Amino acid sequence: MQEESWRDLATVVEEGTPEALLEYLESLELDDRTLAVSRLSDEARQKLLVTLDPDDAAEIISSLPESQVAEAFESLPAADAARIALELPSNHAADVVSDLEPERAAEILGEMDAAEAVEMRALAAYDDDVAGGLMLTELLEYGVDLHVGDVVADLQGNAERYEGYDVQYVYVVDSAGRLVGVLYLRDLLLTPPWRPIGEIMLQDPLYIEDTMGLEDLRGVFDSITFNAVPVVDASKRLMGVVRRSAVQERLAERSDQDYLLTQGIVGGEELRTMPTLLRSRRRLSWLSANILLNFVSASVIAANEEVLQQVIAIAVFLPILSDMSGCSGNQAVAVSMRELSLGLVLPKEALRVALKEFAVGAINGLVLGLIVGCAAWAYSGTPWLGLVVGVALMFNTMLAVVVGGTLPLIMKRFGVDPALASGPLLTTTTDICGFFFVLTLANKLLPQLIGAG
Amino acid sequence: MQEESWRDLATVVEEGTPEALLEYLESLELDDRTLAVSRLSDEARQKLLVTLDPDDAAEIISSLPESQVAEAFESLPAADAARIALELPSNHAADVVSDLEPERAAEILGEMDAAEAVEMRALAAYDDDVAGGLMLTELLEYGVDLHVGDVVADLQGNAERYEGYDVQYVYVVDSAGRLVGVLYLRDLLLTPPWRPIGEIMLQDPLYIEDTMGLEDLRGVFDSITFNAVPVVDASKRLMGVVRRSAVQERLAERSDQDYLLTQGIVGGEELRTMPTLLRSRRRLSWLSANILLNFVSASVIAANEEVLQQVIAIAVFLPILSDMSGCSGNQAVAVSMRELSLGLVLPKEALRVALKEFAVGAINGLVLGLIVGCAAWAYSGTPWLGLVVGVALMFNTMLAVVVGGTLPLIMKRFGVDPALASGPLLTTTTDICGFFFVLTLANKLLPQLIGAG
Repeated sequence: MQEESWRDLATVVEEGTPEALLEYLESLELDDRTLAVSRLSDEARQKLLVTLDPDDAAEIISSLPESQVAEAFESLPAADAARIALELPSNHAADVVSDLEPERAAEILGEMDAAEAVEMRALAAYDDDVAGGLMLTELLEYGVDLHVGDVVADLQGNAERYEGYDVQYVYVVDSAGRLVGVLYLRDLLLTPPWRPIGEIMLQDPLYIEDTMGLEDLRGVFDSITFNAVPVVDASKRLMGVVRRSAVQERLAERSDQDYLLTQGIVGGEELRTMPTLLRSRRRLSWLSANILLNFVSASVIAANEEVLQQVIAIAVFLPILSDMSGCSGNQAVAVSMRELSLGLVLPKEALRVALKEFAVGAINGLVLGLIVGCAAWAYSGTPWLGLVVGVALMFNTMLAVVVGGTLPLIMKRFGVDPALASGPLLTTTTDICGFFFVLTLANKLLPQLIGAG
Repeated sequence: MQEESWRDLATVVEEGTPEALLEYLESLELDDRTLAVSRLSDEARQKLLVTLDPDDAAEIISSLPESQVAEAFESLPAADAARIALELPSNHAADVVSDLEPERAAEILGEMDAAEAVEMRALAAYDDDVAGGLMLTELLEYGVDLHVGDVVADLQGNAERYEGYDVQYVYVVDSAGRLVGVLYLRDLLLTPPWRPIGEIMLQDPLYIEDTMGLEDLRGVFDSITFNAVPVVDASKRLMGVVRRSAVQERLAERSDQDYLLTQGIVGGEELRTMPTLLRSRRRLSWLSANILLNFVSASVIAANEEVLQQVIAIAVFLPILSDMSGCSGNQAVAVSMRELSLGLVLPKEALRVALKEFAVGAINGLVLGLIVGCAAWAYSGTPWLGLVVGVALMFNTMLAVVVGGTLPLIMKRFGVDPALASGPLLTTTTDICGFFFVLTLANKLLPQLIGAG
């Protein structure tokens, strides 16, 4: 890319007409465009979105990071925000609206038609992780008593309106709006116009309820080959359609969020274009909680300072003990997280996981304990120090993998995001126990340790 | 679910006929079925796949974890493996084949028709992360000189064959197989049969080259509303079609892999159904590399043991220093990883990131240094220890965020997976520097520290 294309963009936004702006944006490669728009100041980005046609603005919005989209919708004139929202796919629009402050959302919805606003509000009320929150309401729906010719005429008459619909299936409903069948578009092609669609539709089609969760949706799409499934409410009324890509996109988003959480980025995504103080404060909120936990584990060392004073070599091995146990535990967390997300383990199977992890922990603890124990012996010249450090690491490794493996399941069972498991909670536990093991053992064996030292 | 449905499944596999087996599988909820099949022994799973019809077996395969699929394809009779592979979507089949040992792949391809084998081999040769590796070859392709009636007749005559195609666009090629246009299926509906498709097709359609990478594909789909894009080779011959869902699925997979890597699960996914020794050995391979790095950073402490002996309170703060710096650095890594994957930062912008991170690091270093410094003062009763610990943490935090923020970019630039950045490489660097800072400072201020102690 041109090194500084986002500076050029800022100039074009400042000076340009809608046409000049659109022309400039279209001259950029896609990834340059994303980069350029994301680097604009909030004000410039807002100006850009207002200057463009709503559908072009919606296209830009789709490639922006979530926090910039939220920022834009908070500060755009409500009428512009409403027009752009209506050009987004319905599930994206609903996501955006549900992230807004309630007053602001009401303001934007107030700029829409009553019917549009009601639908948008209903969509926004769904959780992001259920079928209702992922479905599109843009779909083709016809009454079961219509004929093939009626449907074709409607398609013909509204070709433009249906353009963005990604039409492939036509859903058939009864007079109460309940889903009764699905028509393949190609079957319409091959059937004379006078036949009732009820005769050629696929009856009892697969459908899902609007409350179905993301993991179940993944399971459904894993087991079918088609790319869209209709969504119904509790009384089987057709509500929308969930596309395979929407499920995949949400799964990818959630993986990304989990990753950020495990690395201590809380409170939503962080971009380097955000103000330094905001970034700093968000990171500190997590770090300062972590400091407190660190003080707790350090207090175990402090309580045993006398032992340490007499066998100073242990101090060399405390950070190793802490780091190695944390790593072992985090490996087990990662395996549990993955098995949970693939549906290969149930949250209630903590005991099964604990046993499986115990076996691995016993072997790894033995190996790591031997290596580090020998190193401690070689370093200090006394086998007793090797024994103390090695045994402590062995037991702590076993403990770390069992805790690390089961913690995500237990958290999931109690409705807490298991991605938080691999962080401070685990390492604090393993630090406390590790320091306690090694210093208590050292205390017991103090005569031998000093005698030999 | 039934607590033990996978034990029941094992019995049905052992005793059952194809019909009984299929009936039992269909009686299970989807997620129970995935769990039950994944918990079978490798032998039982193999037997199950051979017993079922190839298309049912392919459906089962689609919901299994990667390593179990690979295992199944390594050990199934080659003829069965070939039949099942042909029932999978072409991109999945190619993934499976490309993961096999070359001899085994040749054996399975040998059971296919020559044409099928050639196509499969060509697909398997693509990298998983480019358009060619993600595309489906199941598509509708017609010569530009055909008429609407010809296309409709072909659709009609081959309705069954096209059933799994998720047909929505029809691609139009010239006599050399080069892409020249796209037809919407609904346009076929609305056009008299005698018109040439060349007249109603969309000319100059959007297409992508088979070598386009995953990040660029994400960008393309972010900026368009339709769900499939045709793929061409360097001479613009139509090769296949990439669906939005395939891109999303691969992105989700890669996020998952990155997460596993950052947590020290290397060498592919780990499932708890794998043999304990294998799991143990894989985890140890990473842990033992980590031990060596730990020894390096511990050697900084060992080299300063005398200082530590005289100011034993520092030992209490070494693990805190290590943990806090690691956390600060990992936050910066996570932000860089995310910005890289969203295309919001370029690998060459390390200097920009370093400056942005330095600002956050300076603030956070100051705050954390103050907190921990005061704690050290309060604990030891001497402000000098507070100064030593606080200043060391301050500098080390700045260093950690700058290194953490830039490391993923630098690794990406040199073609190394940036997910490896947040691991041992970062924490070893921050440990070495942190221990060095605090112990060197303590050494300089030894008279004050001892005098006050």
